[in-house]
Amino acid sequence: MVPRNAFYAQSGGVTAVINATAGALIEAARAHPDRIGKVYAGRNGIIGALTEDLIDTSLEPAENIAALRHTPAGAFGSCRYKLKGLETHRAQYERLIEVFRAHDIGYFFYNGGGDSADTCLKISQLSATMGYPIQAIHVPKTVDNDLPLTDCCPGFGSVAKYVAVSMREAGLDVASMAETSTKVFVLEVMGRHAGWIAAACGLAAEGEGDAPHILLLPEVPFDEAAFLARVRDCVERHGYCAIAVSEGLRNPQGELMAETGARDAFGHAQLGGIGPMIAGLVKNKLDYKYHWAVADYLQRAARHIASRTDLEQAVAVGRAAVELALAGKNAVMASIVRLSDQPYRWEIGEADLHQVANVEKKMPPEFITADGFGITAAARAYLAPLIEGEDYPPYRNGLPQYVRLRNVAVAKKLPPFDL
Amino acid sequence: MVPRNAFYAQSGGVTAVINATAGALIEAARAHPDRIGKVYAGRNGIIGALTEDLIDTSLEPAENIAALRHTPAGAFGSCRYKLKGLETHRAQYERLIEVFRAHDIGYFFYNGGGDSADTCLKISQLSATMGYPIQAIHVPKTVDNDLPLTDCCPGFGSVAKYVAVSMREAGLDVASMAETSTKVFVLEVMGRHAGWIAAACGLAAEGEGDAPHILLLPEVPFDEAAFLARVRDCVERHGYCAIAVSEGLRNPQGELMAETGARDAFGHAQLGGIGPMIAGLVKNKLDYKYHWAVADYLQRAARHIASRTDLEQAVAVGRAAVELALAGKNAVMASIVRLSDQPYRWEIGEADLHQVANVEKKMPPEFITADGFGITAAARAYLAPLIEGEDYPPYRNGLPQYVRLRNVAVAKKLPPFDL
Repeated sequence: MVPRNAFYAQSGGVTAVINATAGALIEAARAHPDRIGKVYAGRNGIIGALTEDLIDTSLEPAENIAALRHTPAGAFGSCRYKLKGLETHRAQYERLIEVFRAHDIGYFFYNGGGDSADTCLKISQLSATMGYPIQAIHVPKTVDNDLPLTDCCPGFGSVAKYVAVSMREAGLDVASMAETSTKVFVLEVMGRHAGWIAAACGLAAEGEGDAPHILLLPEVPFDEAAFLARVRDCVERHGYCAIAVSEGLRNPQGELMAETGARDAFGHAQLGGIGPMIAGLVKNKLDYKYHWAVADYLQRAARHIASRTDLEQAVAVGRAAVELALAGKNAVMASIVRLSDQPYRWEIGEADLHQVANVEKKMPPEFITADGFGITAAARAYLAPLIEGEDYPPYRNGLPQYVRLRNVAVAKKLPPFDL
Repeated sequence: MVPRNAFYAQSGGVTAVINATAGALIEAARAHPDRIGKVYAGRNGIIGALTEDLIDTSLEPAENIAALRHTPAGAFGSCRYKLKGLETHRAQYERLIEVFRAHDIGYFFYNGGGDSADTCLKISQLSATMGYPIQAIHVPKTVDNDLPLTDCCPGFGSVAKYVAVSMREAGLDVASMAETSTKVFVLEVMGRHAGWIAAACGLAAEGEGDAPHILLLPEVPFDEAAFLARVRDCVERHGYCAIAVSEGLRNPQGELMAETGARDAFGHAQLGGIGPMIAGLVKNKLDYKYHWAVADYLQRAARHIASRTDLEQAVAVGRAAVELALAGKNAVMASIVRLSDQPYRWEIGEADLHQVANVEKKMPPEFITADGFGITAAARAYLAPLIEGEDYPPYRNGLPQYVRLRNVAVAKKLPPFDL
C-alpha cells in the first residue's frame, strides 16, 4: 500500500495536555512510514486546511515532538471555526478536497470537543458524498468533559486537579483570615453548560467543614434564598465559606447569569464575571467581607500541575487515533472506557462519531447532592481517579521549559481561498 | 537562666511559606529548652494575645510541626489588626502585659509585613515604657515584597513564581487561540502599592514576543492612550497581547483605578477588579476579543508551585528569629542580605525595627523600562533568583497533603477582655 499523508489539527479551547496527544499521534504515525507519509498539522485548526496553511511536522526534531508531552496549549494554533452544512457551503468542502488532494492527505485527525466532532463527522462523509477517499478520526479533548461515549475527556483531569488544588489552598487562606477579615471566598471556574469543573473543586474537601462548602453548578438553577441561607449557616458554623461557581450558572428562568451579550464564533455567549457577581450578592445581602478569583485560562493551561492520569489518557488517545486509522476506520472517536473505579483501570475504545457530534454530557442527577450545592459519593468515585498523580514539566531558571515548535510551512500548491 | 516562654503569631495576609517560618521557629525553640520554655501561638495573630487565646504548640507532634514546611496559609490563624498608640490605648498594652506575665512570656515573635512590624516595635518598647521585660523580634513575611532593609520578603518569591508560571502558561493559551478568538489576555495580580508581583510576571518572557507584553505597575500612572497604542501594536506584530496588571494601578490623578466607581458597558457598577476593567477598555476602544483572570488568593496560597529559594529563606528567618532572641536582641527583624546575583548567594542579617515599621519599599525607577510597560535587565537580575527551584508538597489521592494542626488552647488564667 502506498503511504498517504495525514492531516492533524487542534480545535476549540486548548488544554494542558492537548499537545501531549499531538506528540503521541505524530510519534505513532512516524512509526508506520509504510502506511503514513508525513503528518501535516493545520495552522490554527481547520482554517489551516482551508487556507492551505500546513505545517510539516516531519521537519520538527524528535526532541521537540517529545517535549510536546509537557507543553500546554496548542502548539500548532487552534481555532473556533465550525464548518457549515455541506448543502449550503459546498465550496468550502470542495476546497478542502482540493487541499487534501494537492497534499495527498488520506487521514484526517481532529483533536477537539463537541463542535469539532461535528466538523470531523462532516469530513468523514467526504468519501461517500464527494468521492474523495479519506478516513476521519476524532481525537477527544475538552476541559468541559462534556463529550458522550467516553469515560472522560483528556484535558479535563488536569483542569480538575488544578481547581481542586487551588480551592484547597485558597480555602486554607480564607480560614486563616476569617477572624478579622475575609469570610467568603468565591472561585469562578469554567464549564459552559456542564458542571464538571465546579464539581471537581469539591474534591478538595475531604473532611467535615473543609473548603469548598458550596458548589454552584449549571445543572442546578440558582436559588438565591437557599444559597444565602447556606452561606450564612456556613460562616456561623465554620467561620468562613468557600464557594466554587461555574461560569455557566443559570437563573430559575434558565438564563445564563453572567451573559455579557457578546458571542463567540460558534454563537455561544461569551461568559465571565459570575464570580464577582456572586461575591457582590453575598456582600450586599449578608455584608460579609469577600474575595473572589477568576481562574480563566490559568486553569486550562496549568501544565505545571497536570494530572498524570489525564496525561496518560491524552497520550493514549493520540496513539489510538493512529491505530484506528491503520485499521481502516472512519467517522470514529478514540474513547476512554472505565473498567473500575478503585483502582482506576481504563482502556481505549472507539465511539461512533454520529453519536458524539453535538451531544453534551452533563452531570447526572445522582452526582449532585439533594440540596444542589454539593457532590455525592458517586461523583467522587467518578472524579477522584481523574486527578490522580503528578507529572511535572522540566524547569530552568525557576520556570517550566515549554517547547516552541519551528512550525515550518509546507509550500502552497493552490491559489488562495477566502474563508 | 530560667527558661521563659515564647509567643509567636502570624499577621496580615498569609502566604505559601509563612507556616514554613513558623515550623522552623518552633523547631529552633524546641532545641533550646534551657532558654525557651513553650512556644505559645496566638490564635488569629495579636488578637490571640489580647484575648488570652493561646495555642500550646508543645502539644503538637513533631511531624505536624515538620509538615508546616509544606503547608500554605496561616496554621494558627492570622489577623488584620494594628495596635493603637500607647498614649491613647494604654489599657490594651496593660492587657498584653497581663497576659504575657500570666504565661511567663519573655519572647515575642511577630511574623508579618509593614503594619505588623509597627505592632512588633510597640511591643518591643514595653520593657522600657512599662517595665515588663520582653524581647520582640520581627519575622518578615509579605507577598507584597515591600519591606525595607531586606533583600526580599519570604512569601514573595513563591507568589512571583506562581504568577510567572501562570503567565507563561496562559500566554501560550492565548497565542493558540488568537487567530479566530481571544487576542488580549489580562491577568490581575496583587500589589496594592508596589509593583513587585506584576513585575515578576515579566520573568515569563524570555524571548522577543513572549508573553507578557505589557506590565501595568502602581509605580507608573496609567496612560490610556499609550497603553492602547501598545496593545494594538502588539496584536498587529505578534497576533495577541498578554497583560499583567497590578491591583494597585493608579490613574494620572493618583487614584486607585479599581476604586474609581467604573461602570461596565451596561451601566452596572463594576464589582471590583482592575483586570476586568482593563479588559473592558481594550474591548471598547479596540474591539479585540479578550479574556481576563484574577488570581486573588490563588497566587499567595499556591504552595504547590512554591519557590525553593523562597522556602529556604522562610525557614532561615524562622530559625534566625530564635537566634536573635537567644542573643538578647530586641526591636530587630531577621533580614535577608544578598551577597551576589548569579549565583544567588544570601545570608541572614538583622535590621533595626525602627527603620522597618511603616516604610514601604516600591520598585526603584531603574527596574522599570523607559516606556513604563516593562522591567529592565536590572529588575530581572534582582527577581530571577527569587523564583529559582521547586519544592513540591506530598500528594495523596491527587491532592497536596497539607497539615491541620490540633491547635490545643492553653487554659486561660485571666478574665475576658473586650477588643
